[in-house]
Amino acid sequence: VMASSVKKFLSATLFEYETQKVIAISSYKIGLIYRGIQMLIVTYVIGWVMLREKGYQSFETVVSGVTTKLKGLEYTNFTEIPSIGDRIWDVADWAVPPQMNSAFFVTTNVVITKNQSQTTCEEDKDNKWHAKCSSDSDCIKGHVHGLGWGVRTGRCLNSTREEGLRICEIYGWCPTEQDVLPLGEGKILMTRVQNFTVLIKNSVEFPKFGVKRRNILSNMGKNYLRGCNYRPDHEMDKYCPIFRLGDIIKYGQAISPETAKQVWITGGMVAIDIHWECNFDYDEEECKPDYKFRNLEDGHVGRGWNFRNIIRKCLLCLEQKAPSKITLSFETFSHAYHYVEDGVHRRTLVKAYGIQFFISVTGRGGKFDVLNFTMNLGSGLALLTLATVLCDIIVLNIMRKRKKYRQAKIDK
Amino acid sequence: VMASSVKKFLSATLFEYETQKVIAISSYKIGLIYRGIQMLIVTYVIGWVMLREKGYQSFETVVSGVTTKLKGLEYTNFTEIPSIGDRIWDVADWAVPPQMNSAFFVTTNVVITKNQSQTTCEEDKDNKWHAKCSSDSDCIKGHVHGLGWGVRTGRCLNSTREEGLRICEIYGWCPTEQDVLPLGEGKILMTRVQNFTVLIKNSVEFPKFGVKRRNILSNMGKNYLRGCNYRPDHEMDKYCPIFRLGDIIKYGQAISPETAKQVWITGGMVAIDIHWECNFDYDEEECKPDYKFRNLEDGHVGRGWNFRNIIRKCLLCLEQKAPSKITLSFETFSHAYHYVEDGVHRRTLVKAYGIQFFISVTGRGGKFDVLNFTMNLGSGLALLTLATVLCDIIVLNIMRKRKKYRQAKIDK
Amino acid sequence: VMASSVKKFLSATLFEYETQKVIAISSYKIGLIYRGIQMLIVTYVIGWVMLREKGYQSFETVVSGVTTKLKGLEYTNFTEIPSIGDRIWDVADWAVPPQMNSAFFVTTNVVITKNQSQTTCEEDKDNKWHAKCSSDSDCIKGHVHGLGWGVRTGRCLNSTREEGLRICEIYGWCPTEQDVLPLGEGKILMTRVQNFTVLIKNSVEFPKFGVKRRNILSNMGKNYLRGCNYRPDHEMDKYCPIFRLGDIIKYGQAISPETAKQVWITGGMVAIDIHWECNFDYDEEECKPDYKFRNLEDGHVGRGWNFRNIIRKCLLCLEQKAPSKITLSFETFSHAYHYVEDGVHRRTLVKAYGIQFFISVTGRGGKFDVLNFTMNLGSGLALLTLATVLCDIIVLNIMRKRKKYRQAKIDK
Repeated sequence: VMASSVKKFLSATLFEYETQKVIAISSYKIGLIYRGIQMLIVTYVIGWVMLREKGYQSFETVVSGVTTKLKGLEYTNFTEIPSIGDRIWDVADWAVPPQMNSAFFVTTNVVITKNQSQTTCEEDKDNKWHAKCSSDSDCIKGHVHGLGWGVRTGRCLNSTREEGLRICEIYGWCPTEQDVLPLGEGKILMTRVQNFTVLIKNSVEFPKFGVKRRNILSNMGKNYLRGCNYRPDHEMDKYCPIFRLGDIIKYGQAISPETAKQVWITGGMVAIDIHWECNFDYDEEECKPDYKFRNLEDGHVGRGWNFRNIIRKCLLCLEQKAPSKITLSFETFSHAYHYVEDGVHRRTLVKAYGIQFFISVTGRGGKFDVLNFTMNLGSGLALLTLATVLCDIIVLNIMRKRKKYRQAKIDK
Repeated sequence: VMASSVKKFLSATLFEYETQKVIAISSYKIGLIYRGIQMLIVTYVIGWVMLREKGYQSFETVVSGVTTKLKGLEYTNFTEIPSIGDRIWDVADWAVPPQMNSAFFVTTNVVITKNQSQTTCEEDKDNKWHAKCSSDSDCIKGHVHGLGWGVRTGRCLNSTREEGLRICEIYGWCPTEQDVLPLGEGKILMTRVQNFTVLIKNSVEFPKFGVKRRNILSNMGKNYLRGCNYRPDHEMDKYCPIFRLGDIIKYGQAISPETAKQVWITGGMVAIDIHWECNFDYDEEECKPDYKFRNLEDGHVGRGWNFRNIIRKCLLCLEQKAPSKITLSFETFSHAYHYVEDGVHRRTLVKAYGIQFFISVTGRGGKFDVLNFTMNLGSGLALLTLATVLCDIIVLNIMRKRKKYRQAKIDK
Repeated sequence: VMASSVKKFLSATLFEYETQKVIAISSYKIGLIYRGIQMLIVTYVIGWVMLREKGYQSFETVVSGVTTKLKGLEYTNFTEIPSIGDRIWDVADWAVPPQMNSAFFVTTNVVITKNQSQTTCEEDKDNKWHAKCSSDSDCIKGHVHGLGWGVRTGRCLNSTREEGLRICEIYGWCPTEQDVLPLGEGKILMTRVQNFTVLIKNSVEFPKFGVKRRNILSNMGKNYLRGCNYRPDHEMDKYCPIFRLGDIIKYGQAISPETAKQVWITGGMVAIDIHWECNFDYDEEECKPDYKFRNLEDGHVGRGWNFRNIIRKCLLCLEQKAPSKITLSFETFSHAYHYVEDGVHRRTLVKAYGIQFFISVTGRGGKFDVLNFTMNLGSGLALLTLATVLCDIIVLNIMRKRKKYRQAKIDK
């Protein structure tokens, strides 16, 4: 008895297959709709999921490293401007700091204050909004204003830089910086910057697939690399890893020529994206980078930003007479060269205006993968049941013979 | 005959619609359960997938660039400490290196060793654990200890810095650094650091949607930007891009006031996250950044970390008498100012203690997209079949009339 | 009447449950296939989705900060080479710039040009490909070649560095760099670099779960941290945050010993990945980092890259006689120490060859989440309908009794 009941249970569960009972309705109209929807779904699964999104592959994102090598030489012969003078700027002068991770800065304009030492002098006249005085009692001894250049000594001096102005004396790095561009406002000091070049070296790895690639391709010889410049439309040069800075700004999308000119004068931020989209079902030599440039400056003059053709001083030192709409696109930072002369610690302060470039590497590699292929195929098949659901809605609710269909489909 | 068989085949496949035969069971109980589950699924699809996760939109992550501009002035007048003295620290002194990609370092304490040149002198007494000697034979000439300051000359000297200690002579940058904080342990040299400010400039782009945004909003005038400070609860100031360093530490979540104080004294790491969550179905002017701060230091004193109120020397030079639980939260690094005096190459070595700030930009923008909308709607409809599956389980296995239902549902 | 029709509508829609009519086919063959496919799906859902991919958890990626502290001392006593001489290199000399965000650079070789000032001298002989001349008329006064060292003065000089060569005079930083490695080609100057160490400090936070972790574990005492070195196979030392640079190259996967040697001689790029895979359903003390190293240099000598055992000069200054296949793996950059002597601004130019290390932090933490658990379970149940779809295809099209099954399943 026991054996027979076990057998019965097994045949009832293990060896029994349940499938849905279906009703076949012969109708030109509904049949066409049904097959049409099925075709759409099959097209979507094959065309979109499989071919376009490569649903048969498994993917991996890149591990990468980027270094840059800058080249270029600038010569300024303004003997009438003592802080600049007759001077050669090589890469160690204009690429400061010498190295950053995935970024580089190119100086386009400088304000140089030579031979500073820690002593007393008058406060910068641009700070008169907090350092103006009429008598010594206005300058509290020992007071440190966070946006000033030093600690006040308690004396009120006649300014030597602006007639009729009386300003507090400070103890600090003296003489203070005079934030006047060497060639005047709106003029760029380093006119050759557009012709400077950057060699971007990018090594990537796809660890899962064991593939290493670099953006300097194996067919690039030394002669090619000495002369080439990146050009997006050229068959070979679109892989050249040497970029003219002028080209980077030019190819940066969606800015007007005017905004591009602004970037050179007032500085800005530019993003360089190196994208690797690789299919390792084919030859891995075909895995090549794609370069995209983006000027992160907003060119929408009319949208509340009043781009003015002059370089203004740092944001917080603006004179109160300046117009209320200002551009904030320029990038500056200060660095100093320290030295000791006659026992006195001195420095040369350099305020650098320029363009900050950011490099990002994105990408993924794909290879045929059984699991992913099966899973996406399975999901595609499951989507086919959607055709029935949609047709049911039409047949049972919209069509004229809906009552008849309803009776045929539904048992009470 | 041929034509008729083709016609037959077509009418059998192309013009035939197959739909599942269903059984309608009238029952208050099971009907309510069925509709309830359907309601839950519809609520989930509309409420979660569509509204909360915005399933009707296609998304894109941001391309971004960040630069920082630091402001602040420190005055130290410790004439009794020769290495510090009467000194003004401006941004070129305390922000070293002057620029990093998406990060900045703020000095809070320094150990300065002036006027080093390459000659011979006694080894640092903190290195006595490997450089102690009793006679010249203990100091092997030419030996370079990786954690020492120079190559041994083979001579054993009486230390001038610690009485009774005999230590090897070295050839290296002399005199060696004395790793004693200028004001003593647990004291911060630069007390005004909390009031220093940083202006963070962040430009983002959503390339697919052609939208560029910056964290300096279009309604911010020059006067506003001169005076504002970030305040998270204020309607306007929560978008002010100027941050007091003290505020960043304060708003950094989940640390006790004690730990916050520690960060100032012993240094630490702080992450600043700028998050852009934008919906371009609305006005893109509403696309504004959201700032989050995180002190990456662990405030869990009881969890094996014994935060002590003193700044210890660099991790690897700790004296062996020190307690076994140590804090490793402080950040330091050494940099040097080189100069030539009387033909001798000299340098001033600065060991900077401070806080390392990291800036990350995250975010996504969404816009209505027909494909995503249809796909998510379709998946939602497909989920409705789940209601039938769940109810079948209940009806056929749990309910009292299950035998009857089973007979009605299943044809053998 | 109204009430009764409402009641009728309600009983027809709200209290009616529709379930598919199914046909049970008793057949050993098809039953086994059906149950087999169901088992596969259940195994997949439980084994893969639930256990391996942890479908019952919600996940969060890490917020992190990284700083590095380098240690090591190099001694070079080449008194016969004046630019190097008898010299100690400490961390402030060989780690330049002193700090980068998530990266560090280690110098392995240098070309030092001492005592440069802005005056006139002959152009570098390596630039003879553009600066060679036979008379003054070949050197156009005022011409600036982007790859030269200065502006031409219009005079043609006899080279003092290469016999028989006549080369243009320039105005620039003089004397120009002689790009000859101090010890000759293929020789590494800083032989102790392999023993230098880096302490990597990494603090991570999982904001959603409120957990902070660091890579220096709570059971690491000061004595342990003074002596330990990372070793991947050791139970304790695989968490030691101090890495010998030689070990990092050694553990970097998939390069031959020859390529590894190349990296030391010619420089290169190395990626360090710190991975946190944490399960907060268990003790969070078990949340520990995992270190991976990758030499981003391609060791495929045969694939178009001819790694030569010599260090060549910068890419763009290669002599034309050099072989056409070149290695580009070395990393160099120039930085300068500025000083003033006798009123003349001078500098020491250092061209540093070395290895660029990149640090990336990845990871995710997971915790049990009701919503994710239900959703994945639901999707799993929905997948079970796939078994019916697949069996239908087999039963109705492949099996011998398909006609009979078809009749039973399909009502016309």
